[in-house]
Amino acid sequence: MTYVDESEVKSVSQATLRRLPKYLHLLRNLKRRGRDAVSCSFIGEHLSLDPTQVRKDLAVTGVIGKPKVGHGTSELIDAIEQFLGWNNVTEAFLVGVGNLGAALLGYDRFNHYGLKIVAAFDKDPAKVGKTIGDYDVLPLEKLPDLARRMNILMGIITVPAEAAQSVADLMVSSGIRAIWNFAPVNLQAPEPVIVQDEELYATLAILSRHLAKNLKSEKLERGIEVNGLDS
Amino acid sequence: MTYVDESEVKSVSQATLRRLPKYLHLLRNLKRRGRDAVSCSFIGEHLSLDPTQVRKDLAVTGVIGKPKVGHGTSELIDAIEQFLGWNNVTEAFLVGVGNLGAALLGYDRFNHYGLKIVAAFDKDPAKVGKTIGDYDVLPLEKLPDLARRMNILMGIITVPAEAAQSVADLMVSSGIRAIWNFAPVNLQAPEPVIVQDEELYATLAILSRHLAKNLKSEKLERGIEVNGLDS
Repeated sequence: MTYVDESEVKSVSQATLRRLPKYLHLLRNLKRRGRDAVSCSFIGEHLSLDPTQVRKDLAVTGVIGKPKVGHGTSELIDAIEQFLGWNNVTEAFLVGVGNLGAALLGYDRFNHYGLKIVAAFDKDPAKVGKTIGDYDVLPLEKLPDLARRMNILMGIITVPAEAAQSVADLMVSSGIRAIWNFAPVNLQAPEPVIVQDEELYATLAILSRHLAKNLKSEKLERGIEVNGLDS
Repeated sequence: MTYVDESEVKSVSQATLRRLPKYLHLLRNLKRRGRDAVSCSFIGEHLSLDPTQVRKDLAVTGVIGKPKVGHGTSELIDAIEQFLGWNNVTEAFLVGVGNLGAALLGYDRFNHYGLKIVAAFDKDPAKVGKTIGDYDVLPLEKLPDLARRMNILMGIITVPAEAAQSVADLMVSSGIRAIWNFAPVNLQAPEPVIVQDEELYATLAILSRHLAKNLKSEKLERGIEVNGLDS
């Protein structure tokens, strides 16, 4: 296998990073069906992406396709997994077992994406001690000690906005290095801790914009006067 | 107010679209605190973004800032809302009231982002008739008739992967034009219907990559041999 030294890879755009799991998902399906090699055109067609974009994205992993043959399926899977750090499973703690927390605990596919939620916490005494799927809900006070003993590096926050910063602070002081934040608030954390917000509104923005554009062009086609275009 | 005719705006990147809700959120907070104008540097500083990036992003809405003064806060809010179609609230139906569906029904902030979930459906007789927050869960069979009568344009899918396509088909045949899909599957829908997947794994990929990079560079600093770098 040939991997480019990662220090040579300059900056990888978030858009590329966001697409890598899609490629991984498709490649794993292809591998299961016994396909050894795959071209960027094939991937592009299946995921409605420009093949040139696909080629550029895959290049960040350091694997280079062969002309006429394409990329080796297994090689590409390994390279993406290694690039994302998904070749080793990261164990995570989740805090906040409301509806959203329970939904994430029930997602049985995270382990295909390098993540294993190993414990769930809440500060509500009414929730502590209950069982959600495979998880016994633990009291939040137990997080620091357990995180250190288990060397937990990732935390998932699914508490209400007003509680999120204090949970993040607790995670940071317990040695957690990466936070996946589902609370609708911008969290502060000191270097080198990474916070990634799950931004539902970002997806909604893409959808809304396309819908608004479609509806507007249809109205224009039908010759109905549209507000704001001629102002 | 000066808006550029939208047909002049070429293609807007998804990255820009994803950032617009962040700007909107900040601008609304500033407006509440009585701030009339804001500069791109100020916005950039607050959101940890490059001011040039902010300027480029905001330009897609057609509002142009004044030198030394910056952008008018209210003007910018209006422009972003109009650009995203959030000046009019879009009514949506949600199908699938498991944990994730219930979590979305409980999100009371969607209305600030142009979205109002007006009804929730499930095909499980055990769930139909129950109340979740403000919603009575309706049987899925009622969706087509209600969607047409209420002229619903947006559907939210929070059912398991194996049921998602049939729900999408039902939505499309009921006149729904935009689908926000939370099921971990690629859905097919005919033009001009838009499907936007909520890709949790995409966010996870960004987080995992940064964590893997940080850990690797720390190991390198500590002089520990790292697998794969010298192979």
